[in-house]
Amino acid sequence: MLSKNQIKLITSLQQKKQRLTLQLFFAEGIKGIQELLESNFELVHLYTTQNDFDSVSNEKKVVIDETELKKITALATPNTCLAVFKIPSEKKITESGLILALDSIRDPGNLGTILRLCDWFGISQLICSKETVDIYNPKVVQATMGSIARVNVNYIDLVPFISQTNLPVFGTFMDGTNIYKTNLPQEGIIIMGNEANGISPEIEKLVKNRLTIPRFGSLQKTESLNVATATAIILSEFRRLS
Amino acid sequence: MLSKNQIKLITSLQQKKQRLTLQLFFAEGIKGIQELLESNFELVHLYTTQNDFDSVSNEKKVVIDETELKKITALATPNTCLAVFKIPSEKKITESGLILALDSIRDPGNLGTILRLCDWFGISQLICSKETVDIYNPKVVQATMGSIARVNVNYIDLVPFISQTNLPVFGTFMDGTNIYKTNLPQEGIIIMGNEANGISPEIEKLVKNRLTIPRFGSLQKTESLNVATATAIILSEFRRLS
Repeated sequence: MLSKNQIKLITSLQQKKQRLTLQLFFAEGIKGIQELLESNFELVHLYTTQNDFDSVSNEKKVVIDETELKKITALATPNTCLAVFKIPSEKKITESGLILALDSIRDPGNLGTILRLCDWFGISQLICSKETVDIYNPKVVQATMGSIARVNVNYIDLVPFISQTNLPVFGTFMDGTNIYKTNLPQEGIIIMGNEANGISPEIEKLVKNRLTIPRFGSLQKTESLNVATATAIILSEFRRLS
Repeated sequence: MLSKNQIKLITSLQQKKQRLTLQLFFAEGIKGIQELLESNFELVHLYTTQNDFDSVSNEKKVVIDETELKKITALATPNTCLAVFKIPSEKKITESGLILALDSIRDPGNLGTILRLCDWFGISQLICSKETVDIYNPKVVQATMGSIARVNVNYIDLVPFISQTNLPVFGTFMDGTNIYKTNLPQEGIIIMGNEANGISPEIEKLVKNRLTIPRFGSLQKTESLNVATATAIILSEFRRLS
């Protein structure tokens, strides 16, 4: 049985401000929750319509019905379970290997998909500008499909970080060198820009290695790729023969 | 001024059944509408809150206010304009070059993103199974960002089509050959499967060329890539040095 206060608390976690104040977030769906449980995320409460998750103690497990789940879900079609976790403290940035940096990605689906790509391509460090959508936004958590447990994410001011790094810095622009014909190292920072405006001018100044994904065919008019699909192509190209 | 019947007609076009009956669909936003106007799409009516689109005759242009736009839009944050077009008759399939075939893609955002990728990589023929989401679904039209005007899309039964083709047939599976180490031709049919279930067993039997996108690193647990990002990687790989 869910109390009004519990419903109020959980739904309030859809707001970034409340997540920051309470240092809590929630995930939905068996697979995503299972992956967070297996990682170092600290469970507060699990709400489930099934009597599943045997590994979770009865103090933390609340069996609810579908009507109750509908009151707390952020999904149009709710799953069978929702779990509230503590937001872990940010780990130190690992400044080696390939790092992906996001300059104001605003769409939760894009951020979630990009995190899943990082996981696939073994990018263990993701850096987000402070304007980037919050990684604990329920739509992001949903889109990551569990990858949130395996990629280190930090929110920082990108300009000072990129100014001081010894790693080569890459970005994609319309006038860059053909990514398919460039030798790409296994160390560096790859910057992906905002959905509408691309990489911001202050960051662009710091990008020494300008790349481009060529369009195929001269008659094509497509102006841009979606940022998640562009990230897929770039990470694939960096990793393809490594 | 919008009549009740006009509002009813436009909102009814959010349903596939109504689009099929009336052979009409709608697009929103200046850029997307402009691209459809420049192509061979036949405009029925343009509804705009600005007095823009000089090329559109006054008989077809209806200036409305924002309150009216909110009544007909399919978007949470409406643009400034919405245009109703006739659905063009399907052109014959061009059975040459690279063709992308979709086996039951259900998410409108994925289909729209894939269409945009086809446009970028010069894939002029997209074939969809009849279970694939409708290309004239407002969310698909929105996600294509105008690319809908430049890619030929057909809805067919995939099994008989793939059974009779002389083109090589490609699909991605967990146990395929490494896509980065395979010689990929510039002619063939590339099949992408459903978001949850992948390529269906009947289609899988017809795939002679089994490919895989390798994961990076042995500790990775990511089970799959989003279908749109997987399509991005595959099309990039087919086209990269062509």
